Amino acid sequence: MAGKLVVIEKYFEKELKDEIRAAAAQSGYEPFFYDTQQDAAEAVRDADIVFATMIKYVHRAKDLKWLALSSAGADWALRPGVLPNDTCLLTNSSGAYGVSLAEHMLMLTLMLLRRMPVFAESAAKEEWGKNMAQKSICGSRVTVLGTGDAGTTFAERVKAFAPACVTGVCRSGVSKEPVYDEVLPIGQLDEVLPRTDILAMSLPGTKETAGILSEKRIGLLAPGAVVVNVGRGSAIDEPALIAALESGHLWGAGLDVMHEEPLPAGDPLWKAPNLILTPHVAGNLTLPWTRKKCVDMFCENLRRFGRGEPLLRQVDRGKGY
Amino acid sequence: MAGKLVVIEKYFEKELKDEIRAAAAQSGYEPFFYDTQQDAAEAVRDADIVFATMIKYVHRAKDLKWLALSSAGADWALRPGVLPNDTCLLTNSSGAYGVSLAEHMLMLTLMLLRRMPVFAESAAKEEWGKNMAQKSICGSRVTVLGTGDAGTTFAERVKAFAPACVTGVCRSGVSKEPVYDEVLPIGQLDEVLPRTDILAMSLPGTKETAGILSEKRIGLLAPGAVVVNVGRGSAIDEPALIAALESGHLWGAGLDVMHEEPLPAGDPLWKAPNLILTPHVAGNLTLPWTRKKCVDMFCENLRRFGRGEPLLRQVDRGKGY
Repeated sequence: MAGKLVVIEKYFEKELKDEIRAAAAQSGYEPFFYDTQQDAAEAVRDADIVFATMIKYVHRAKDLKWLALSSAGADWALRPGVLPNDTCLLTNSSGAYGVSLAEHMLMLTLMLLRRMPVFAESAAKEEWGKNMAQKSICGSRVTVLGTGDAGTTFAERVKAFAPACVTGVCRSGVSKEPVYDEVLPIGQLDEVLPRTDILAMSLPGTKETAGILSEKRIGLLAPGAVVVNVGRGSAIDEPALIAALESGHLWGAGLDVMHEEPLPAGDPLWKAPNLILTPHVAGNLTLPWTRKKCVDMFCENLRRFGRGEPLLRQVDRGKGY
Repeated sequence: MAGKLVVIEKYFEKELKDEIRAAAAQSGYEPFFYDTQQDAAEAVRDADIVFATMIKYVHRAKDLKWLALSSAGADWALRPGVLPNDTCLLTNSSGAYGVSLAEHMLMLTLMLLRRMPVFAESAAKEEWGKNMAQKSICGSRVTVLGTGDAGTTFAERVKAFAPACVTGVCRSGVSKEPVYDEVLPIGQLDEVLPRTDILAMSLPGTKETAGILSEKRIGLLAPGAVVVNVGRGSAIDEPALIAALESGHLWGAGLDVMHEEPLPAGDPLWKAPNLILTPHVAGNLTLPWTRKKCVDMFCENLRRFGRGEPLLRQVDRGKGY
């Protein structure tokens, strides 16, 4: 009898579902597709494999062998009580979101440097805006905090804008990607912040990254710096960020992720000056390119699983990514 | 006695004024600096050289030998009654604005593809926005209409986003820039529009470019295409653009230039759906990089002028650029 594969994702087109069906048949699994986690709440109970971003009812799948996250982040799945047993494999879809995340980071960076929020405010009132000081990526010193798929895809694009330098900062201090002018370990973050005009953050949500951009470190950034974050909101001390925007120490910030999501009405972030907020849409499945890549990667892993081979993109439960 | 050089520009820093003073002294000219054209209204009467963007009173300078435009566009200076005589030289500052124009074009393109106006509307109400279909530069077919400094600087940056192809379209159909996958003459524009997902326009304002993006050509664009324009507003049939945005034929448009500037309140452009408007700020002197480049270029020409050598970047009064 074929094993049971539960796929939860409303954005997958018919071609992508067919691709999953073919890989499942090849591997001895029968796929069942659901649009929402609510729809899959019962079906998930006897699943062998779940492929989803939403994982609300996965703890019910007592015999789950593999949770394949269609997201890049795995922090939600590692919270206590989510995974149904200690032995099931956990993979993420890191590699599918770099293009989307990088374009979002570039968009936020350019909007901040060029004062787009001010022009948009004038335009909303049908008023012609005024010339005002702007900044440029050209000649700026860019620091990429987190040199994974998102950070490196961003670095490759930002490099074309002729920045003064692109510095990568990551846990190991080592990257095989040639795009970086230098790569430093996270222990040297304090040294690079005073020479950072644009800080692009795309870190996973782990114990080590929580609060990494602290009040002290925000103070260390070059005056007039810009911060964008598409990783996890937990990485930034938000009250300190707001204070630095209000004092003018920072030129601006762009956040796609926040401590609390959805961000509730009345949160001070909404009214902070020169802060652009987007509702966690930098790295989602709304790009056709991302959906295709995500399904391709899953199907490759599904065939490996069927053949009993090690899976790619396994999440280290200790590290959290 | 030294000749008279009138410089009109409020954004130039002391260092840049000093640079102009040094080049002027070397070339036998005395510079006089004014913040606005109004301030220079009388001083301009006996000027030998004027270096300015604003040229309201230049017609008074009966013995003017050279009008050095600090702008890239020269169309305003070629309107009847602006130049005081038939013999004065006219140069522009093409080459100083590419970085600023290209970053603006990329910003508008990314904002449109990623639905930023919709997210901004939610954020203004302190509401968390919803996921919705987005697009990407990655895999898109990009057409650059106008392969001068702005278009080519844009092409070099957009290339890093992994588009399917980057096609340049210009008068001659020839470009020495290696960034383009193909370059076509303007006569073949109709052939390339149906395979254009992103149309980036940075044409000078001339008789040939007026109305070039006609109603018919907007209809030829690939369904769901995006149009950005930082050249001259005269290039686009605005009512037809609005209709194509309203019908959904176009995904969005971003205009930094319009038929009428400042755009008056009540103009239908203000309320067109998926249209981002900025107040002619894509290529101005608000970037330090641009000011430095612009002054460097002028000083080089001033030294040439002092030595009686031909000037660089002379405007062809027939072509208009």
